[in-house]
Parts: sequence; C-alpha cells; structure tokens
Amino acid sequence: MKKITAYFRKHPLNLLLLAIPLALMAFWLEWGELWVFILSALAIVPLAGYIGESTEALTFYTGPRIGGLLNATLGNAAELIITIVAIREGLLDLVKASITGSILGNVLLVLGMAFLLGGLRHGEQRFDSKHAGRNAILLLLAVIALAIPSLFSHSIGPDTSLPVEALSLGVAATMIVLYAAGLIYGYKTTGMQVDGPLEAPVGGNAELVRIVQKSHRTDDKGIHSPWSLRTALIVLGLATVGVAVLSELLVGAVEPVVASLGISEFFVGIILIPIIGNVAEHLVAVKVAMLNQMDLGVEIAIASSLQVALFVAPILVFISLLMGNPLQLIFNQFELLALIVGVLIAVFVSQDGESNWLEGAELLAVYVILALAFFLLPF
Amino acid sequence: MKKITAYFRKHPLNLLLLAIPLALMAFWLEWGELWVFILSALAIVPLAGYIGESTEALTFYTGPRIGGLLNATLGNAAELIITIVAIREGLLDLVKASITGSILGNVLLVLGMAFLLGGLRHGEQRFDSKHAGRNAILLLLAVIALAIPSLFSHSIGPDTSLPVEALSLGVAATMIVLYAAGLIYGYKTTGMQVDGPLEAPVGGNAELVRIVQKSHRTDDKGIHSPWSLRTALIVLGLATVGVAVLSELLVGAVEPVVASLGISEFFVGIILIPIIGNVAEHLVAVKVAMLNQMDLGVEIAIASSLQVALFVAPILVFISLLMGNPLQLIFNQFELLALIVGVLIAVFVSQDGESNWLEGAELLAVYVILALAFFLLPF
Amino acid sequence: MKKITAYFRKHPLNLLLLAIPLALMAFWLEWGELWVFILSALAIVPLAGYIGESTEALTFYTGPRIGGLLNATLGNAAELIITIVAIREGLLDLVKASITGSILGNVLLVLGMAFLLGGLRHGEQRFDSKHAGRNAILLLLAVIALAIPSLFSHSIGPDTSLPVEALSLGVAATMIVLYAAGLIYGYKTTGMQVDGPLEAPVGGNAELVRIVQKSHRTDDKGIHSPWSLRTALIVLGLATVGVAVLSELLVGAVEPVVASLGISEFFVGIILIPIIGNVAEHLVAVKVAMLNQMDLGVEIAIASSLQVALFVAPILVFISLLMGNPLQLIFNQFELLALIVGVLIAVFVSQDGESNWLEGAELLAVYVILALAFFLLPF
Repeated sequence: MKKITAYFRKHPLNLLLLAIPLALMAFWLEWGELWVFILSALAIVPLAGYIGESTEALTFYTGPRIGGLLNATLGNAAELIITIVAIREGLLDLVKASITGSILGNVLLVLGMAFLLGGLRHGEQRFDSKHAGRNAILLLLAVIALAIPSLFSHSIGPDTSLPVEALSLGVAATMIVLYAAGLIYGYKTTGMQVDGPLEAPVGGNAELVRIVQKSHRTDDKGIHSPWSLRTALIVLGLATVGVAVLSELLVGAVEPVVASLGISEFFVGIILIPIIGNVAEHLVAVKVAMLNQMDLGVEIAIASSLQVALFVAPILVFISLLMGNPLQLIFNQFELLALIVGVLIAVFVSQDGESNWLEGAELLAVYVILALAFFLLPF
Repeated sequence: MKKITAYFRKHPLNLLLLAIPLALMAFWLEWGELWVFILSALAIVPLAGYIGESTEALTFYTGPRIGGLLNATLGNAAELIITIVAIREGLLDLVKASITGSILGNVLLVLGMAFLLGGLRHGEQRFDSKHAGRNAILLLLAVIALAIPSLFSHSIGPDTSLPVEALSLGVAATMIVLYAAGLIYGYKTTGMQVDGPLEAPVGGNAELVRIVQKSHRTDDKGIHSPWSLRTALIVLGLATVGVAVLSELLVGAVEPVVASLGISEFFVGIILIPIIGNVAEHLVAVKVAMLNQMDLGVEIAIASSLQVALFVAPILVFISLLMGNPLQLIFNQFELLALIVGVLIAVFVSQDGESNWLEGAELLAVYVILALAFFLLPF
Repeated sequence: MKKITAYFRKHPLNLLLLAIPLALMAFWLEWGELWVFILSALAIVPLAGYIGESTEALTFYTGPRIGGLLNATLGNAAELIITIVAIREGLLDLVKASITGSILGNVLLVLGMAFLLGGLRHGEQRFDSKHAGRNAILLLLAVIALAIPSLFSHSIGPDTSLPVEALSLGVAATMIVLYAAGLIYGYKTTGMQVDGPLEAPVGGNAELVRIVQKSHRTDDKGIHSPWSLRTALIVLGLATVGVAVLSELLVGAVEPVVASLGISEFFVGIILIPIIGNVAEHLVAVKVAMLNQMDLGVEIAIASSLQVALFVAPILVFISLLMGNPLQLIFNQFELLALIVGVLIAVFVSQDGESNWLEGAELLAVYVILALAFFLLPF
C-alpha cells in the first residue's frame, strides 16, 4: 500500500488510470454522454503516457535505427488512434482540427508554459538557436506545403473535386518522402554528431530519461532498470488496446456532447483532443524547462509539431482513403491562419536563442485568445 | 527678443504654437472647415511635444517606478485624447485606422527616416539586434493577438454580434495584463541590467536627454536644469487641455473636410492623425539616428509601436464601452495586412542588427506606396 | 570535328542550338503547334546563355559602372523579350505568371537544387548570412511593395479602374527609383568593399568565371582569353535577334498548345517560361554550390529574384503602357501567396547561414507541390 502511494506521488498523472473503469461504467450504465466524454478523455491521458514510456523502453533493445522508426511511428500513437476512430465515424472536421490543434498546442501552449515556468525559476534562459532554428525552418516549409491544397481549393470554390483529392494525395506522398529523408539525415549526422533534425524525439527522450533520473536520484537508488523487453511489449499492447477502446467511447460521445453543451465540434477538435493525446509529452517539455534544459524543451515542442505535419497528417490522408472516407487536406481559413501564425512564432522565437517568462506569457496569451475565439464563435 | 529667436531656432517646431490662436480664430470666425482642420492639426504638434517633455521632467521627481507608469500612460496622451474625442463623435473607423497608422508610422516612416538619414551621414550603422529583436517579437505576438477578433469576424460575416464584442473585450483584457507584465519585467530586469523590453521609453528618453544635450553643449553652458515639479505639472496640464480643445476642432472638421476634398476618412485616420500626434517623438528617433545612436532610434520606434498595440488599443476598447459607443477590435482587411506586413518588416529589420540608407529608402518606399494606395482608393 | 565534339562535351547545353533550325522548320512546314512550342522553347535556352556570356564579356571592356548597368539591363534579357512579345499578343496573365514564376523559381527551385546537390557532395555548407540576409530583406520589402496594388484591387472588386492603374504606375516608378538607389549603393560600397547588395550579378559572375575556370584548368591551358569586344557585340546582337524571333514562335503557339493539352496558360507562365529563360543562370548557381561556393550560389538566386521584382516587373509596366496594352500589377490570389511564401522562405533560409541537403529537399518539395497544384487545377 505504501509503495502504491509512493508510486502515485511520483507519477500523479497515473491516478487517472482510475478513470478507465469509471468510463466503462459510465458507458454501460448510461450515466449520460457528458460523463462518458469526460471520463474517457481523462482515462486516455495516462495510457498515452504508457505508450510513450514503453516505446522508449523498446528502443533500448532495438538499437537506434529501428528505435528511431518506432518512436517516429508510435510517438503520436494515441492521437493517431483517436483520429482514426474519428475518421471511421466520418468526423473529418474534428480530425483536421486536431491536426491543427496539435501543432498549435506544441508551439504556443507547451513552449509558452516552458518559457513561463522555466523563466520564473531561472530568469533568462538560453538555448541552441542554430539547431532549434533549423528545425523551425523545416516546420515552416512543412506547414506551407500542407497549406497549399487548402489555398487552392478556396480559390476554386467549395466543391471538393477530383483535382483537390489528387493534390491532397500528392502532398501527403511528398511529406512522407520528406519525413523519410529527415530520418535518413538524422541517422547520417548522428553518426558523426548528435544534432540531426527530426532525430530529436529519439535522442531527446533518451537524454531526458537521464536528466529526469538525476533529479529523482534519491528515489531510484542510483540504478536505472528499464522495463524488460517482455514488459515493454505487454505494456505497449495493453495501453494501445485501452486507448483504442476509450477512443471509441470518446469519439462516440463527441456529437451529443457538442449538441448539448452548445460548444462547437471545432473547439473539441482543436483544443481538447490534442491536449488529451499529448498531456504526458507536454509535461515532459515543461519539466525539462524547469530543470533549465531549455534546449531540450524547445526541441521537444518543435520536433513534435514537425512529426504531426510530416507524418501524422499524411498518414491520415492515406488511411482515410483506405477506409473509404477520404480526408482531404483542406483546412478552413481559420485553421490555416492559426497554423501559419503558430509556426511563424515558432521560427522567430527559436531563432532568437533566448527565452524569458514574458515571452512565455505572450505565447500563452496568443493561445488563450485563440481558444477563447474557438470557444465563443460558431463554426 | 533675441532669446525668443534663439529659442525658436533651437526648437523650430514650437513656432507651430502660433497655430493655436489661429485655429481658434478659424473656428469662431468661420474661415471654413479646411482651415480649422489644418490649423488645429498644426497646433497639436507642439502641444504633444510639451506633454512628452513635461512627462519626462516629472519622472525626475517620481523615481523610475511611477515614472515608468507615467510614461506608459502619458506617452501617447495626445493620440489618446484625439481618439477619445473621435469615439464620442462615433468616428470608430477613424479611431481604428489611427491605431493601425500609428504602428505603421513607427515601423516604416520613423525607422525608414532614421535608417536613411543616419545611413547617409554615417554609412552602415549597427545596433543591438538581441534587444531590438526581442521587442520586435513581443510586437509581433501583440499584433497577432490584436488581429484575431478581426479574422474571426470576417469568417462569420459582417454582422457585429455579441460573441465578437466578448472576444474584443477578452483580447483587450489580455493585452492590458501583458502590458502590466511587461512593466513588471522591465522593473525587475532594470534592477540588474538596463535592457528590459517595454522599459525603453523611460530609460530611452532619459538617455536621449543626455545625448541630445551633449550635442548642444555650447548652447546649454554645460549644466542641465530640468523643469521644476511645479513647472512640469503646469505645462502638462496646459498642454493636455490645449490638445483636448484642439482635438474637438480637429475631429469636428474631419467629416466636412473629407467630403469636400474627396479624400477618404480612412486616409485621414491612417496617415494624418498618427503623424500629428507623434511628430515630436518621431523627430527624436531620427535625431538620435543622425547622432549614430541607432540602438536608441530602433528602440523608440519599436517600443512606441508596442505601446500602441498593448496599451492604447485595449484602453480605447474599455473607454469606448464606458462611453456607450463600443469600439470592437475589428480591423478591415487592409489594416490587417498593413499591420502584419509592417510588423514582420520590423522583426526582420531588427534581427539583422545593421542598417544602411538603402534599407531606409526601402522602408520609406513601402510607406509611400501604402500612403498612395490609401489616398487613391475609395473605402 | 574533334574540337566541336570537345566543345559540346564542355557545354552540352549548346547542343540545343540545333533546335533553332528545327523550330523554324516546324513553323514553316506546319508540323503542329506543339512541336513549334517545344522546339522554340528548347532553342531559346542556349541563346539566353549566350546573351549572358556576351554581356559578361562586354563588362571587361566597359569598366564596372557601365558594366553593372549592362548586366542589370541585359541580365534578364531573354525573359524580357519573351514577356514583351506576350504583352503585344495581349497575354497579360501569362506575363504576370512568369514574373511570379521567375522569383519562385529562383528561391525554391534554384536554391533547392543548390542546397540539395551541394549538400550531398559537401555535407553541411555555410555561407555569409549577413550579406545574404540583407539582400533577402530587400527582396521581402520589394515583393511587399509589388503586392500592394493587388491587395487593394481585391478589396475594391474586380473592375480595373483608373486608381488601380495609377497605383500600378506609382509602384513601378518607386521600384525603378529603388533599383537605381541599389545600383548607386552598390557602386559606393564596392569602392571600399565588395559586398553591395544588387551588385551581386556583376561581381558574382566575374568571380564565377574565375572559379569555373580553375576547375577546367586542364582544358584551358591556364590562360583566359575572353571574347574580343567585336565578338561580344556580334554574339549579343545575334543571340538577341534569335531570342526575339523564337519568342514570336513560342508565344504564338501558347494558346493552341494550352487548348489542346488541357494545361492552363497559368502553368505555362509560372513554371515553363521562367525555366526556359533562366536555365543557363540556374545551372551556374547549382554549379558553384557543388564547388562549395555556397555564398555565390545563394547570392545568384536571391539577387536574380531581386532584379525581377525591382527592375523587370516595373519596366514591363511602363513598356506595356507604351504599347497600349497596359499591364497592371494585379496578381491573382495564388500568385500573391506563392510570392510571399517564396520570399519568406528565402529570408529565413538565408538568415540561417547554413544549408544541408535536407533543407534543399524541402525547398524542392514546396516547389514540386506548387507546380503540381498549378498543373492540376483550372484557373
């Protein structure tokens, strides 16, 4: 019992595991859609964290190459599962909103929190602007490529014709190729030096494990024993199944909840879904910022956005086509604006090489105003 | 008599004080609205300068904290008074245009003149790109936040509904909080080092006084005697009253003048009003650039824009609500473009850390083309 | 015979000279418009290269000042001739598309190829970010100025009224003044140091000649004999006449080819025409990148864009007015977006000061996606 208390004190987020049975009860016993929505959302948070941790553990056994690939594929697994379920239900607007929201959340909310809390504790913080800036430019290019079909389709009118679908597929294919190129680039340069773009999630989290461990040394008795290969695989399997089941409940409850609360489906997609799927990762970025490892904090935020733009979005285009419910990369005017604004901010902020709490407060202010706008206005 | 001649030779702008009685005569003797408009516009210029000087003098007595607050509040007093009068008259488009024009004027006209004239005299000039770049990023974030309600309202159609008003107020409140945060940040960092963002107007002008004095040492007999507290208060009071009275005349004449000359109210708001309210400040930025103090010149231009975005605009939203004539932060498509373009330019130019006369000429070219467009086209 | 083989092995592009007689035959013998189009396009490529080479040779005799002017005027001669012929035929959309495409081609295709191929051979490459960044900012300002009339005309509706024409002329005049200012700035600073903006094409190509020669030293027997003045003038004259004649064939064939192939005139203008007119120059930029002279490669790409924005576009406005077929600087929504995106990318990429093949691949990806969009969608 004492051990359990200690465990939850160290990992308070895992208390949310209790939401799993509650969510299932809410569904079977028909407590109402709102309870299903809230409880399944809460329950996904720790499971997404477990997918991340078990992937991390697996990379200890696979070596860096396959590990990088694993990380790249499973890094956004929770979000991928939720959006795939949403595609099957035909909630394509929700899916596109959550792609946008995921990028925005990383560059405004996560970076903002990291700058604010890190800055309050450590004053002005510095980070390697060369590396961060390079990733930010890749992100800018990726988002511009992602935005091109939308810009075209707006200029030819609302009907989603064959050329728009062809263009969507062309863009998605190009992105996947670039993503692969990025992984190759990462392998090649990390052979010599450890600063390949896109390589971040791998090297990043491994380094993070070390850093976070150092700060908990007293608890861990100095020795780090990662999960065994078997444990890692079992945890990964269970967490994935859990996320899949809960995503069904969550997505099924979206429409009734939206209707009863009077909030927009767009708000759910752009603010709530990305937060649910990424809380664990977000906390890590903020934690390292507070440990004055701002290099790593900026890296996680930008590399994570990059992964969504270059990997998650294109994969969803192809998966949706296979599922017979084709997702076209046509973002609405507001998603486009938010994306471009968010990414420009990321570029400027990262080229600067310095952060302070005021800059963090400004990033959060932009996020809060955007969220307020999404909340207030009908779509 | 000789002293008066010498005074006006040193402060040629103050010759415009003669326009005060003329403006009043034009109004009472009904010389025509055009004369009232021109004369009251000219008369406001030196009075706005006196408000600035007396505020500066007051900060010698209040200490830096309250001095900073004073400067922050009174730094754009002339413009605030004009726009408040305009709000009462219901000229809300004029007010929004003058907010846009004030930011544009600072980053294109003032910076352009400073780079051009400074560069012609000193060749390539350098300035601290770190500090200028940091302020420029804050400005970018502020302008983006300011633009969000407009982007939303354009996407939901022309009717100004309740959510748009709520969003305007939300943005204004967030901006004021950020402005306060910026002042706090400034106090904290200037305790240790003298480079807090937003702190610029205070430290800036004080430093300026010293620099400008040095260059006039022969006139001043080496000793600087700022105004007494009483003089400062009396000058501040008189100048404020003067600006208020003349603003009545100016704003009252806008509509007939616009109608008779065939220029647009928009042109008056975006080009003329900001110039009238800021000439004195603008001249200071150009003067320091010509003294090869480009750090200070860039600082004045960007910090002044920042103050308009973070303080003047939100304050006007609240004041207009109290006056029963609510100003919504809905800029037209063109104001938005001009704002974003202007601020992006400010960011790029300031991150560069170097200026030359060609860069100044390009900034002025953009301003001239914008002004030509505002002049030529109907709104 | 052996000499001729050796010559063509060294200058394989000149094999395309064979397309000149074929194009003429295709026209006289009525092989069909498609053949005329393809053959005249191919034939223009080496002739454009000869115009460039003979201009370069002339500058050896004129001295740097007039040489700079010559280069500035004749640097885009082939493109100017094609577009002037197109203006006479009333293909104004084609002309505007080719202005956009020329800037895009330089900052995405050329820079992308240079980064990709240079990076694959040399790994990470560095270049002088100060100089490149300064030119990129000038380009940004120029493109913004160029975009202002379009933004206005979109906001007042589709009819091209007198104010829009006046604004177009005002912008064109301002640009020419800025271009002249840039040349003066270049002369002044190159007196002392060799890095004036806009000066690039002159110093650039001269330096290039030296670099390329070094790499071919074995062929050239160590001594460089430029063309005689007479040869240069004759080659220039013949090549210009050749381009003019072939442009007639090319432009005359555009409309039937577009109709029969189902591609858009817009695609021809934005992708094909710029490539035809600039292949020779593009190859030079890529060549120097592969020789690890990335400074020069970036310089050529950005300076060439700058020349189109500040010189070619305004000149076409005035020439078209004289020809009674006034070209207004009203770009469509898509050209504007592409321009702004392209130039922002140029700014970010050049401020960075480093390049690698992944960055090159991303630039090419954006270009490919844009080209795909232009190809797929109707305009």
